[in-house]
Amino acid sequence: MADLTIAKYHGTGNDFVMVEDLDGAHPLSAELVAALCDRHLGVGADGVIRVTRGRDGDDFFMDYRNADGSLAEMCGNGVRCLAKLVYERGFTAATDLRIGTRAGTKQVSVQTVGDVVTSVTVGMGPPAFARGSIPMAGPAGEPFLTEPLDVDGTTFKASAVSMGNPHVVLFVERDPSDVDVRRIGPRIETDERFPEKTNVEFVSVNDGALTARVWERGVGETMACGTGACAALVAANEAGLVPAVAEVRFPGGTVVVERTDTEVILRGSAERVFEATIDDAWLAARGPTA
Amino acid sequence: MADLTIAKYHGTGNDFVMVEDLDGAHPLSAELVAALCDRHLGVGADGVIRVTRGRDGDDFFMDYRNADGSLAEMCGNGVRCLAKLVYERGFTAATDLRIGTRAGTKQVSVQTVGDVVTSVTVGMGPPAFARGSIPMAGPAGEPFLTEPLDVDGTTFKASAVSMGNPHVVLFVERDPSDVDVRRIGPRIETDERFPEKTNVEFVSVNDGALTARVWERGVGETMACGTGACAALVAANEAGLVPAVAEVRFPGGTVVVERTDTEVILRGSAERVFEATIDDAWLAARGPTA
Repeated sequence: MADLTIAKYHGTGNDFVMVEDLDGAHPLSAELVAALCDRHLGVGADGVIRVTRGRDGDDFFMDYRNADGSLAEMCGNGVRCLAKLVYERGFTAATDLRIGTRAGTKQVSVQTVGDVVTSVTVGMGPPAFARGSIPMAGPAGEPFLTEPLDVDGTTFKASAVSMGNPHVVLFVERDPSDVDVRRIGPRIETDERFPEKTNVEFVSVNDGALTARVWERGVGETMACGTGACAALVAANEAGLVPAVAEVRFPGGTVVVERTDTEVILRGSAERVFEATIDDAWLAARGPTA
Repeated sequence: MADLTIAKYHGTGNDFVMVEDLDGAHPLSAELVAALCDRHLGVGADGVIRVTRGRDGDDFFMDYRNADGSLAEMCGNGVRCLAKLVYERGFTAATDLRIGTRAGTKQVSVQTVGDVVTSVTVGMGPPAFARGSIPMAGPAGEPFLTEPLDVDGTTFKASAVSMGNPHVVLFVERDPSDVDVRRIGPRIETDERFPEKTNVEFVSVNDGALTARVWERGVGETMACGTGACAALVAANEAGLVPAVAEVRFPGGTVVVERTDTEVILRGSAERVFEATIDDAWLAARGPTA
């Protein structure tokens, strides 16, 4: 790769290196993704999103990688960043978009003031409680919800919810700021009951809103997670703790999640931070992976 | 500020947002520095270095700020990044430079291959054991070296060394990777015996080299620290643990430190990662501080 121009975006503090590759000519190696995401030696991000043209009627495709270079299915904060990018960069004039992801096509609408995208609403698809990717104990075919989950002798009320990617939602009594997320998160992420590993949300209910922290699979704790917000709302609503629409407040900011009869809708903001040209020598030092 | 173009550099993993402001027309507010250094909502860095023309015979001046926006005297990794920048960007053709810092003028030489700076050697000035900024207990006028320092009931051999900025070097028996730096570091940083606060190095001696981790004042743990490397070498040499020249191995990489009769010399590499234009809307959202 001769030159590499990227842009940095974040959605509620969940930050991404965005690579425009509409022609799909520059797939990224796992090693380069990991090097770009390194917060001291590279650009620093929770993941890399390569933006390409979509197929099968999709307007664009979100090639999303975790910070360790592994493939990721879907990220609600990431798809908001992508929508802001393609609209503000003039790649489309439409405000309703079909965005392809590894978890299927997402319906996305941008709310605009002039040329500026002020918020993005994403149809995140239906939640799933299937045992396929999340083989939890429990009666076959029924949702796994608010069952106990033991970690190091502590018992949590836990719900397993798939939003295209796997989540385990743990309900905590106090504010999740008191929870040792860095100890409990990786224990559940790598629990043998989740052969594909899992994201983990720590959630409390306060006046009809959810306060949440998230441990992302393959990443660690992040400031927010879009699919995690959806999983948290679905689990809390299913358990009768909140109505079908509620704010989900992460350390990085707040999103609004609504559960309809058919799917989960996520609305939130995205912000462009900078555009950058990666140094040639930096790329060359990362060897042929670049 | 209409536009803000920055570059990201690192020296052994100690990373900086570099702002070229040769005319000195764009001083940075503490709020903007902190926003730029935010690793999720901003660019992300251990600090910001604004490069201006020097005064009183200095070629350039390093206006260095910590990640929290506070002023910093000097940073050995940062001054290497500055030297690489001014040479490779063509601001000077000289390989021997006088760089002004808040800790005085530093003699810097760049080692080059063609137009590329491969390493940078910095005269870091003499170490000091003065009680002025580091009022430790001990006989007046004598260096405070390898005295015991208690933290939460654990006793460390400790040396207080100033390299223009204050350092406390703690010698540990085992590899410092076993040390709970995030607990002990801030305890010493904010100890009332250091009214200006202090940087803290955790150092072990292995086959004539030093292995070190650093807790930087106002920042937290970083991957390396140039003045910390010097302080560690001086303390270890003074205590008879290593010769007057030794490698100092940080998590972010290795530097070579030499103590001469008159001063301490630091040699190491620096790397340019990217050049970026900060988004106008991001700047505007940070208010008049930008």
